[in-house]
Amino acid sequence: MNLLPPSLLDAATDRPVMVGFSGGLDSTALLHLLANAPTRAPGSLRAVHVHHGLQAQADAWEQHCRDICQHWNIPLQVIHVDVARDSGDGLEAAARNARHTAFKAQLHEGEWLALAHHQDDQAETFLLRALRGSGIDGLAAMRELRIFGNGQLWRPLLPVSRTTLEIYAQHHRLQWIDDPSNDSDRFDRNFLRLQVLPLLRERWPHAAAAMARSAALAADASHLLERQDSDDLQTCLRTDNTLSIAALTQLTDARQSRVLRCWARQCGLPPLPANGVHSILQQLLHAADDQQAEFRWGQARIIRWRAHLYAVTPLPEWPAGWHALWDGCHPALLPDGATLSLHGADSFDKPLTLRQRQGGERIQLHGREHSHQLKHRLQASDTPPWLRTHLPLLCDGDDVLAAGDGIISASLQHWLQAHDAHLQWQPPDPAN
Amino acid sequence: MNLLPPSLLDAATDRPVMVGFSGGLDSTALLHLLANAPTRAPGSLRAVHVHHGLQAQADAWEQHCRDICQHWNIPLQVIHVDVARDSGDGLEAAARNARHTAFKAQLHEGEWLALAHHQDDQAETFLLRALRGSGIDGLAAMRELRIFGNGQLWRPLLPVSRTTLEIYAQHHRLQWIDDPSNDSDRFDRNFLRLQVLPLLRERWPHAAAAMARSAALAADASHLLERQDSDDLQTCLRTDNTLSIAALTQLTDARQSRVLRCWARQCGLPPLPANGVHSILQQLLHAADDQQAEFRWGQARIIRWRAHLYAVTPLPEWPAGWHALWDGCHPALLPDGATLSLHGADSFDKPLTLRQRQGGERIQLHGREHSHQLKHRLQASDTPPWLRTHLPLLCDGDDVLAAGDGIISASLQHWLQAHDAHLQWQPPDPAN
Repeated sequence: MNLLPPSLLDAATDRPVMVGFSGGLDSTALLHLLANAPTRAPGSLRAVHVHHGLQAQADAWEQHCRDICQHWNIPLQVIHVDVARDSGDGLEAAARNARHTAFKAQLHEGEWLALAHHQDDQAETFLLRALRGSGIDGLAAMRELRIFGNGQLWRPLLPVSRTTLEIYAQHHRLQWIDDPSNDSDRFDRNFLRLQVLPLLRERWPHAAAAMARSAALAADASHLLERQDSDDLQTCLRTDNTLSIAALTQLTDARQSRVLRCWARQCGLPPLPANGVHSILQQLLHAADDQQAEFRWGQARIIRWRAHLYAVTPLPEWPAGWHALWDGCHPALLPDGATLSLHGADSFDKPLTLRQRQGGERIQLHGREHSHQLKHRLQASDTPPWLRTHLPLLCDGDDVLAAGDGIISASLQHWLQAHDAHLQWQPPDPAN
Repeated sequence: MNLLPPSLLDAATDRPVMVGFSGGLDSTALLHLLANAPTRAPGSLRAVHVHHGLQAQADAWEQHCRDICQHWNIPLQVIHVDVARDSGDGLEAAARNARHTAFKAQLHEGEWLALAHHQDDQAETFLLRALRGSGIDGLAAMRELRIFGNGQLWRPLLPVSRTTLEIYAQHHRLQWIDDPSNDSDRFDRNFLRLQVLPLLRERWPHAAAAMARSAALAADASHLLERQDSDDLQTCLRTDNTLSIAALTQLTDARQSRVLRCWARQCGLPPLPANGVHSILQQLLHAADDQQAEFRWGQARIIRWRAHLYAVTPLPEWPAGWHALWDGCHPALLPDGATLSLHGADSFDKPLTLRQRQGGERIQLHGREHSHQLKHRLQASDTPPWLRTHLPLLCDGDDVLAAGDGIISASLQHWLQAHDAHLQWQPPDPAN
């Protein structure tokens, strides 16, 4: 009996697949389908059962799964997890998190994890997202295939209704267990399944299929916009991960908002709140270039400095008085995660000292009669103000030879030129 | 008591507004709000009541609306409509259509029709659309402002809950009527309002606000994609409203699909079915240039001819034997809606004859010794095959002087050059 479009299962014929197997109807049908798919290579299928330890019958379920897998000759791994009962997200979410963490740890490089979510699950997810006021990315609900741990998370049954799976299971005389927690409307999802969807089906018999279709169309639209965001970001992003304001303001407001959110996410900042996007579009983009305007939320900041936007998170401080000897052989790792490297020469003639700026330092530049205050040189440099305390000073005793890789003393410059060498400072990465 | 963000009402302060006034809670609150908005110019507000004739109390409601408007000193227009009880779309849709037609007929140029749809209505619309499997354009539900007849349709209350409107109405001691048909779950929308939303609110008290927010985010996304479609269409569209296949195939598949749908709609064709989009992307775009491949649905066709896609609908046939005398003074209107014009000269030296091609005609071209079969000249021309029977022949007795504006006889060409004139054939428009 062929209930599934065969192309669904074909997608993974050349992949090793690990099925998440609870012993319930859905995953039993999925495991049976995959085990009997004529196109599947022998030995490419295995199952994993997560023992949540939440129900009295959990041990019996584990045994049931072992029996089935032995009977079907499918290797089974059983994992016991501890579910945080007080995580604050609710027991349903905590169980899901524990399960996913266990799956990720088990999944081999390039292997696909197959889960048995079906059309009715998809409709529930769509409704749950709408009840949270999600945008189209959320309304897209579960994707058929997405990156997951070392491999992919694959949900081949999304287009198949639960009724179809039941007919399939009965036809093949499959045996499955019923988890009584599925019948409790204590969980939001169960409330939708037990109360809301039956009511909707009274009037719209194809309610679940329709909502699953809306989810799929939202996924298409979301994907299109992500491509647009990525193209837009490409045109605005500079090599130092800052955004060009000139390029950004070429876009429409709506696209500017999306690029900002996308960029902030990519820089590892927390989600930009709506008032932040508004404030950046209204104020930062139109601030004067000599003004250092910023939007701050939590510990994160977006700063306009000169003609660019910078994504900034707090950097690790240098311990007071930190200093180190450095001979230039290997890159020096600084306390904030930045590095300083010497390229083109093996080492300096003698070990030099790395330390933080204290204030009051002076530096003797090439072709100048008098030494300069380092502070003034920094103000004229391209290093943003909030990074200046992170610039490593390279010193020979009391003489400052360099601040980062941009301000170099006459004597060091002479030495570097003679060796055809240069310094490179890799600033600390706010995303780490 | 200020329950509405004032900016909502400010949007239309410089516009004449006509409120759709049923006498129910929602439109009574809206009319009261607008009548008391301090920023509204005196005399810029009027109301319209549609008498559907569907309920026994309809006459009493009309009187109630007259009383309120007289009391508030707002001009009221009452329109009686006939609702088609057997339209096939159901009574609810038929009443809505009749109402909208009446509103459109009443709306003055540039006037805004204000309707009292609120957040709960928006959530119902969102759900109805999801229950039909709509894409994001449908999930966007009702827009706050859209083009409508001569003016705009404006829904300022979309962000306001029904509960808020009720508190407002009680606070201002407003009087309103309750339409008993609102309590019947015979209508899909009422079923959602009376059965589904109360159930959802048990668990998610802000269900309606959340779904309205999802609708608004879907509208944002839909708008962004429409802009992208329009930009993409711009790069693919040629001046004759055909699509360049070379430009189209530069886009990703998903954007090609959207451009095709957008273009077909703009050409006045019925909505392209999914298998049509698929067939065009898979077959037409990759057909050989010398092959005339097409996709047909209903009476509409999309045809690949040479390197372009053509949107084609059946054109009116020429009546058998149709012919007309034409002196060139004014553009000649042909039986299929096309026109032929003479530019640069007042008229021909004598009236000529316009008629349809019969077959077997020959034409004497400039610089050639013998006359040519017209059929061969047409095959070599840029006129697509399905338009060739629509090309008007311009004749002087039995001599063919021109076929459309592209194939011109030696004698006519000589005359046109001498007068610095030219012919222009405007082909029939499939969208009409």
